[in-house]
Amino acid sequence: MAPPVTVDAIDLARRLLACESVTPAHGPVFDVLEAALVPLGFHVERFVAGEAPDGPVENLLATRGAAGPHLAFAGHVDVVPPGEGWTGDAFVPEVRGDLLYGRGAVDMKGAIAAFVAAAAQVPATGRLTLVITGDEEGPATFGTVALIERMRARGLVPDLCLVGEPTSVAVLGDMVKIGRRGSVNVWIDVPGRQGHVAYPHLADNPVPRLVAALAALDALVLDEGTDWFQPSNLEITDIAVGNPATNVIPARAAARVSIRFNDRHSGESLATLVKETVRAHAPGAIVTARVSGEAFLTPPGHLSALVCAAVEEVTGRVPELSTTGGTSDARFLRALCPVVEFGLTNATMHKLDEAVALEDLAALVRIYAGVVRRATAG
Amino acid sequence: MAPPVTVDAIDLARRLLACESVTPAHGPVFDVLEAALVPLGFHVERFVAGEAPDGPVENLLATRGAAGPHLAFAGHVDVVPPGEGWTGDAFVPEVRGDLLYGRGAVDMKGAIAAFVAAAAQVPATGRLTLVITGDEEGPATFGTVALIERMRARGLVPDLCLVGEPTSVAVLGDMVKIGRRGSVNVWIDVPGRQGHVAYPHLADNPVPRLVAALAALDALVLDEGTDWFQPSNLEITDIAVGNPATNVIPARAAARVSIRFNDRHSGESLATLVKETVRAHAPGAIVTARVSGEAFLTPPGHLSALVCAAVEEVTGRVPELSTTGGTSDARFLRALCPVVEFGLTNATMHKLDEAVALEDLAALVRIYAGVVRRATAG
Repeated sequence: MAPPVTVDAIDLARRLLACESVTPAHGPVFDVLEAALVPLGFHVERFVAGEAPDGPVENLLATRGAAGPHLAFAGHVDVVPPGEGWTGDAFVPEVRGDLLYGRGAVDMKGAIAAFVAAAAQVPATGRLTLVITGDEEGPATFGTVALIERMRARGLVPDLCLVGEPTSVAVLGDMVKIGRRGSVNVWIDVPGRQGHVAYPHLADNPVPRLVAALAALDALVLDEGTDWFQPSNLEITDIAVGNPATNVIPARAAARVSIRFNDRHSGESLATLVKETVRAHAPGAIVTARVSGEAFLTPPGHLSALVCAAVEEVTGRVPELSTTGGTSDARFLRALCPVVEFGLTNATMHKLDEAVALEDLAALVRIYAGVVRRATAG
Repeated sequence: MAPPVTVDAIDLARRLLACESVTPAHGPVFDVLEAALVPLGFHVERFVAGEAPDGPVENLLATRGAAGPHLAFAGHVDVVPPGEGWTGDAFVPEVRGDLLYGRGAVDMKGAIAAFVAAAAQVPATGRLTLVITGDEEGPATFGTVALIERMRARGLVPDLCLVGEPTSVAVLGDMVKIGRRGSVNVWIDVPGRQGHVAYPHLADNPVPRLVAALAALDALVLDEGTDWFQPSNLEITDIAVGNPATNVIPARAAARVSIRFNDRHSGESLATLVKETVRAHAPGAIVTARVSGEAFLTPPGHLSALVCAAVEEVTGRVPELSTTGGTSDARFLRALCPVVEFGLTNATMHKLDEAVALEDLAALVRIYAGVVRRATAG
């Protein structure tokens, strides 16, 4: 029998952070991850999905075990661009004091390293699948969606799924996400007829109709919130008329709204509501909606209790169950099985000098190991 | 005694049209006019006024006679740009059929040529002043305004003023303008605080406040019109938020409105009304107004009757007295004396293939001669 393989989470995190994997992520960062997983007994499958403009995208699926309770861990190795102004080099990981710096330290190469280290610590019981995409920060059209298709095709449908996004707020372990709001953007275009302001009867100004429509949209109360969700919210994010001439009545007026909504709604029901509200004030308006994600909730139960127990065991904290924040790939994974999200603190995500506390990384290994043990036990 | 000098209006119009005097007009077009006026006994004074960005502007003041009833004729030798698509060359005047083509044919080199020809026909009784600017189609900051200053300085305050703008609509003589609406533009800027749409409580979206303000402005009834004016009218001419990101709450929202108003209002009273209406819905809004011109009316009386009599004598038509349309330099000249406007048909003004009917030009000479005779008779 071979000696047990151990993985140093900090060392693996450094190697992942050293790869310049600004979204979409390519080869090397997957090579590092694959090289870490294979010695742990994982079968690793890498594939490229999609075409321009949203693809191609590299993805990685890693499985260990063939029977028993099946836990999936989902994450991404792509990162947002570093931006200007880092103290060091965003892609030369560096420990300064108690922190490991690098783009992706908390979002979310650190969590991936912690999970791999955890998988090395626990006995290989049940089934474990890593669902890793190279495009979560980008369009996400051919990332987790393609991985889910591939999993279905392979009969790899997990019982539970943990997403390693940075959900902790002030300290590691203070928040677990059990759902996310949905998101829909709607574009409104009101046509009119151009003319001279001195002769308004010969023109047809579209702006008053757009203004009336937007006032009506702003007055909508979508809901009062639910036990687990804050109220759905509509924001008017842009208006564009584009008329530089003071004496001209413009030919068209356009606006865009963004709705973050809870599980009382679907993207389509809200798109219809917006369209009907707009058309009541601007009959000729062209209204186009794009749903980025539906709201979902994994009601508190077995999975969240299991994750919270692992968190409390290591940190002594009982995490708050929350549905706040933006969307994540959990919106896709929910189609497979119950999903919750837990990971590092998010204070520096997407910011300059993104960093993870070495202590948090070590604690996260122990928490993830606790989750794996509980989820894959016979 | 020298033989009487005659002026051929068509020939003079052609020579004026041949000068490329896109606003602001420079030297050559003034040279042509000066050369036509001097033989008629006019004292011609040319001067340049103003500095960048609205200047310098060339102007011309021509006077004949030192005592008696004093008529001023006001006009401009600058033209709007020709644009693309003329049948011929916009600055190579050409007679095709019964029409003389060229940029400025009706607005308003044709009328200037007609007035000079008229001045050559009538006895030099009373006083006659030509008030000619090179910037009426542009900012008009240093054109007629500077001419009026110069006239006051010279003690040249006329009793009556005729502006040669193209006021006729369907046929020559169908309309005389006895006033103009005023014009004020107002810029509205509503500040907010940028943020992510997923966290609206951390941001302050200025758009709903702007929308509410604009809805209130659109609902204003400024007045019901007067005996001589149509109702004052407010148009929202632009809205700009300038936010390309679907998930961002914008930091500011701006709009512009244009009001054309009758003599029930002043530009300042309307600016105040807009500011108060906006601030009721958007307390922090920055509201900036620019008055382009005040409304004015020369109540029907001596001057309009005199002009109408001259029109009827030549055309058999009794002109409608009107205050419709955009602003003109009459808004400045009203400070000197009663002002009315009468000129060629405006169907082709500012358009491709601008043209004047030769027959109209000849008739306008006779009408202007009738006006001069009546206005300068002892």
